[in-house]
Amino acid sequence: MTEITETFESQLSRIHKALDEDLNSEVSEILEDLEPAEVALLLESLPLGERIKLWEQVPAEDDGEVLLHVHDEVRSTLLKDMDPEEIVAATASLDTADLAELFEDLPKQVAEDMLLSMDELQRTRLQETLAFEEDSAGRLMRTDSIGVRADVTLETVQRFLRWKESIPDNTDSLMVVDRNGMFMGVLPLARLVSNDQETSVVELMDADVDVIQMDMKSRDVATLFQTHDLTSAPVVDNDGMLLGRIVIDDIVDVIRDDSEQALMNMAGLDEEEDLFAPVLPSAKRRGVWLGINLLTAFLAAWVIGQFEDVLSKIVALAVLMPIVASMGGIAGSQTLTLTIRGLALGQISRTNSSWLLRKEVGIAVLNGLAWAVVVAAIAMLWFKSLPIGMIIGAALIINMLAAGLCGIVIPLVLKRMNIDPALSGSVILTTVTDVVGFMSFLGLATIFLL
Amino acid sequence: MTEITETFESQLSRIHKALDEDLNSEVSEILEDLEPAEVALLLESLPLGERIKLWEQVPAEDDGEVLLHVHDEVRSTLLKDMDPEEIVAATASLDTADLAELFEDLPKQVAEDMLLSMDELQRTRLQETLAFEEDSAGRLMRTDSIGVRADVTLETVQRFLRWKESIPDNTDSLMVVDRNGMFMGVLPLARLVSNDQETSVVELMDADVDVIQMDMKSRDVATLFQTHDLTSAPVVDNDGMLLGRIVIDDIVDVIRDDSEQALMNMAGLDEEEDLFAPVLPSAKRRGVWLGINLLTAFLAAWVIGQFEDVLSKIVALAVLMPIVASMGGIAGSQTLTLTIRGLALGQISRTNSSWLLRKEVGIAVLNGLAWAVVVAAIAMLWFKSLPIGMIIGAALIINMLAAGLCGIVIPLVLKRMNIDPALSGSVILTTVTDVVGFMSFLGLATIFLL
Repeated sequence: MTEITETFESQLSRIHKALDEDLNSEVSEILEDLEPAEVALLLESLPLGERIKLWEQVPAEDDGEVLLHVHDEVRSTLLKDMDPEEIVAATASLDTADLAELFEDLPKQVAEDMLLSMDELQRTRLQETLAFEEDSAGRLMRTDSIGVRADVTLETVQRFLRWKESIPDNTDSLMVVDRNGMFMGVLPLARLVSNDQETSVVELMDADVDVIQMDMKSRDVATLFQTHDLTSAPVVDNDGMLLGRIVIDDIVDVIRDDSEQALMNMAGLDEEEDLFAPVLPSAKRRGVWLGINLLTAFLAAWVIGQFEDVLSKIVALAVLMPIVASMGGIAGSQTLTLTIRGLALGQISRTNSSWLLRKEVGIAVLNGLAWAVVVAAIAMLWFKSLPIGMIIGAALIINMLAAGLCGIVIPLVLKRMNIDPALSGSVILTTVTDVVGFMSFLGLATIFLL
Repeated sequence: MTEITETFESQLSRIHKALDEDLNSEVSEILEDLEPAEVALLLESLPLGERIKLWEQVPAEDDGEVLLHVHDEVRSTLLKDMDPEEIVAATASLDTADLAELFEDLPKQVAEDMLLSMDELQRTRLQETLAFEEDSAGRLMRTDSIGVRADVTLETVQRFLRWKESIPDNTDSLMVVDRNGMFMGVLPLARLVSNDQETSVVELMDADVDVIQMDMKSRDVATLFQTHDLTSAPVVDNDGMLLGRIVIDDIVDVIRDDSEQALMNMAGLDEEEDLFAPVLPSAKRRGVWLGINLLTAFLAAWVIGQFEDVLSKIVALAVLMPIVASMGGIAGSQTLTLTIRGLALGQISRTNSSWLLRKEVGIAVLNGLAWAVVVAAIAMLWFKSLPIGMIIGAALIINMLAAGLCGIVIPLVLKRMNIDPALSGSVILTTVTDVVGFMSFLGLATIFLL
């Protein structure tokens, strides 16, 4: 009975210290108690130098599993440190689906060596898996499902299982197939053990189960698992031939990656980004995003530049103008985030988007009015000018209305254009709220104050 | 064999149309094919009026499961539409853990009625579950695990299971307990069916499994499930008595909620927020967040106000100043997002935070220098002034440095203060980048240009 006594934090500082002082036996001792996924997390939590030191001490038989558990970018730092033979050895024990996931990250030469080192069956399986599109059910599935015939009794099935001796991990059901390998239904182990052993499989099997087509998108598979509370599901080809099974373990990874992606993309980051990536490549990658935003910022500055005249006469405008832009930006990002989540959960479609738009416009008007009064009052008191107060209030309402509208429309349009709304949505939105904010405030001021 | 033929989008528009035209039989027909989780998603995707219409047509026997699957805020709109008796009936068929989840959302009177309508055993179980802290393993666990003795043979176990006839959903292992109910190990069904039936349980059981303490936080349970690739785990009390089991289904919900929370909180939203909430309460809730941000905006305006003198003399400064603040904001939010994800994944701790700080400062310096040159050149050409170019370049470097530092330090400090960094981090960061941005740019201008 394993109890969790040591926190990750203390493991990390122990490892850190041991690596620093080159206490290899201490490092091995810590590693011994850890699962591959935990070793992966430790590796991700170390700067490159220490990461490689630790990686070299991970027992070779765990290498494959650990490689599977780290994010892509960390994985390539680890692969770079391995000889081709080491990589081939590390991946020898992996399941085909797992191997396929690693395969495309491998240096070309290593990939070729690996194919050569495989036997015919392994190679065919890997190539079949790689033939499926990335992010499809075919890539996710395991090919180790156990098939049984429909016309035998439960007793026969149990005898067959005892003869096989071991059953693949996470098997909760057996697959019932006909003599041509066509999928007929599933026989849950729970039914197998709780029924009269003379019953035949066909009487007990569940023929009415969710079946996954091999080319279904992995995101849709994840939704199906969640809405139907599945723990495993059979995968079939277009003719209904059984190809394999998908288990919930792999689905958990899909769900986690998906939601990580939205969070990271909203800041223009890649979800595979290594927290401890070296400075130079990180700076380059983030620089691109900063450059895109700089264009936006210059556009806003250009808009302001059109109003130099009024700005040079009334300096209060320069003081107050960021308030209008900022409030629009905040209101817009609330609507945008809600829309992005709604799209991800599948809650938003053509049918209800107009209702949603009306709702967000309503909220924008209410909050626009309420905060316009506050901002106008403060501006009036601060600069002792009624017109300035009126103008900033009006500009605020206009900008918040624009923000509410765009927070719905921009992600919907991007989605229809097959562009990730989480990635581009916030830049476009900020552009709109900056431009509309400065233009309405300084424009109204030019009209009424000059 | 169920095939997925209809997309959610088309279901939604069919439902929408049927509700609009009061075609009740059409609605029932659509509902018939749906799982409770799918009905829940449909309900979440409808405005309040239509939602209630649909809810009234959901078969009473599904009500409980549907209530479990909707977000909190949507749940309360549904509960409001039900009579106390309906609620009691809807929840009668639920598992204790599920019931406990709903229980605290119920109106007080309904909750009391419900307790009265239960039998002694049910009531005790519910009260025991409610006694565990929210978000603890005790709340997550199901109490329907099947216990077997260690000294019997597999054959006896199978006979016992056949006598029971049915096994709870998602049972992949039996729990081995001694005569006092102390947990000893688990017997996976896969082992039960693939071994000699004369073997005794004690020889085959897995005694070295991860055991969850009843008061472990659900977030930590989720991490354990992910790192150890678990599909179920026993829950014990402080003395090692078996209390129940946690299955991966419920963990998937924890993982999804957790990541939704980070995304929503960064925009000042609650993850339980109803996409179709009525305008007034939504406006109120979001208004609070806007108010907090208004304080920030006024602080920035106040900083600008300190430099009215230089602004009134050189209007180019007003045109260019948002660029400095905006670039700082973007750079800071990148670092902040990365830090928040790192904290959520457990990658960041005291040990490596100083390394991380050095890395982010390095990135800030590199990108600051690179973009400072670009911005300075454009500003110089635009306003035909070398000093303005130099000043904006310097201010940009200063602000991006501040952004990089704060993107690490702010979430770490908030975390140590037990404040959610996703919720407050972005407001505080924006305040810093606005204030530092305006102050450095206008301050340098005052020193060198006046």
